[in-house]
Amino acid sequence: MALKVLRDRILKDGRCFEGGILKVDRFINHQMDPYLMKQIAVEFIKRFAHKPVNKIITIEASGIAPAIMLGYMMELPVVFVKKKKPSTMNDMYSTTVTSFTKQRDYTVVISKEYLGPEDHVLFIDDFLAYGNAGKGVIDLCRQAGATIEGMGFIIEKEFQHGRELLQKEGISQIESMAIIESLDNCEIRIKND
Amino acid sequence: MALKVLRDRILKDGRCFEGGILKVDRFINHQMDPYLMKQIAVEFIKRFAHKPVNKIITIEASGIAPAIMLGYMMELPVVFVKKKKPSTMNDMYSTTVTSFTKQRDYTVVISKEYLGPEDHVLFIDDFLAYGNAGKGVIDLCRQAGATIEGMGFIIEKEFQHGRELLQKEGISQIESMAIIESLDNCEIRIKND
Repeated sequence: MALKVLRDRILKDGRCFEGGILKVDRFINHQMDPYLMKQIAVEFIKRFAHKPVNKIITIEASGIAPAIMLGYMMELPVVFVKKKKPSTMNDMYSTTVTSFTKQRDYTVVISKEYLGPEDHVLFIDDFLAYGNAGKGVIDLCRQAGATIEGMGFIIEKEFQHGRELLQKEGISQIESMAIIESLDNCEIRIKND
Repeated sequence: MALKVLRDRILKDGRCFEGGILKVDRFINHQMDPYLMKQIAVEFIKRFAHKPVNKIITIEASGIAPAIMLGYMMELPVVFVKKKKPSTMNDMYSTTVTSFTKQRDYTVVISKEYLGPEDHVLFIDDFLAYGNAGKGVIDLCRQAGATIEGMGFIIEKEFQHGRELLQKEGISQIESMAIIESLDNCEIRIKND
């Protein structure tokens, strides 16, 4: 079930573009609605209530807002995976992520200081599309020996099949606050709508 | 005066590197402490209490966490300036920012939809160093006809003189939660400490 307040907002302020693009820059990834982020964080807490999470992981930049709000409410540290290696970072895990939207590969890194075998991670991001960012985080967590307890997304584009990819990689719980079934003919169809 | 909880944290977890670099990736710009971000947001609210702010502006990626927390507490929208032009963005303001740390220029953009003459902006970022990100935001706001009510930073490196640059550009209120006087000999000296 979609989170109602998010579903309503997507239908009101979301815009479709050719090639399966849903633009939500009025409230999620350029201008952000902090109160909506808080409502999304509360729903993440409910859905992952039974999981022994000790750390929130996200990826820059659009994942940071929902992740920090969730970390604040759960009183947990938040680590964002970086798309560029800082000059002062030496000991790190790195992997390659393919962006279908941007048609390129990029390297993402996380310091070894902030991910280890003791960590039970909840990964949070704005979009689940093809699942490549999530797959990158799975690789980083494997390298670190960390356990992924689940993955939470604000919006899932079901027709791009990222969920199947992540399930194949062993992620048992994936929660999306709104699942887009189709954007055909520039009509936004939300699951169970 | 430095925010005490931040001052203590910098002295405990901050690390110095050659060339005036203060690494705070344990709690601000890689791993983030959401509760500290909330305390910083409350202090920003106090210091800008008399200003008629209607919008928080920040720049990706490390400004997003303090900005969203502040936006949440003040019930204001937050817009983050982007370092890459999204394929679906057409009408935008853009400017060039020079990064001394990374030794390169980059273009930053904001959609015309989210910045206009009606806006009274508070700019929030993690670091005030040479002031170049702030200068870029001043240029974007000038193009849009928006008013900048003030600028708030978590950490200011006084010896890099960004404050003077921003004051010359007409910014009347600049607030930093901790001002680093010097990192000479890898000793962190915080103002009024």
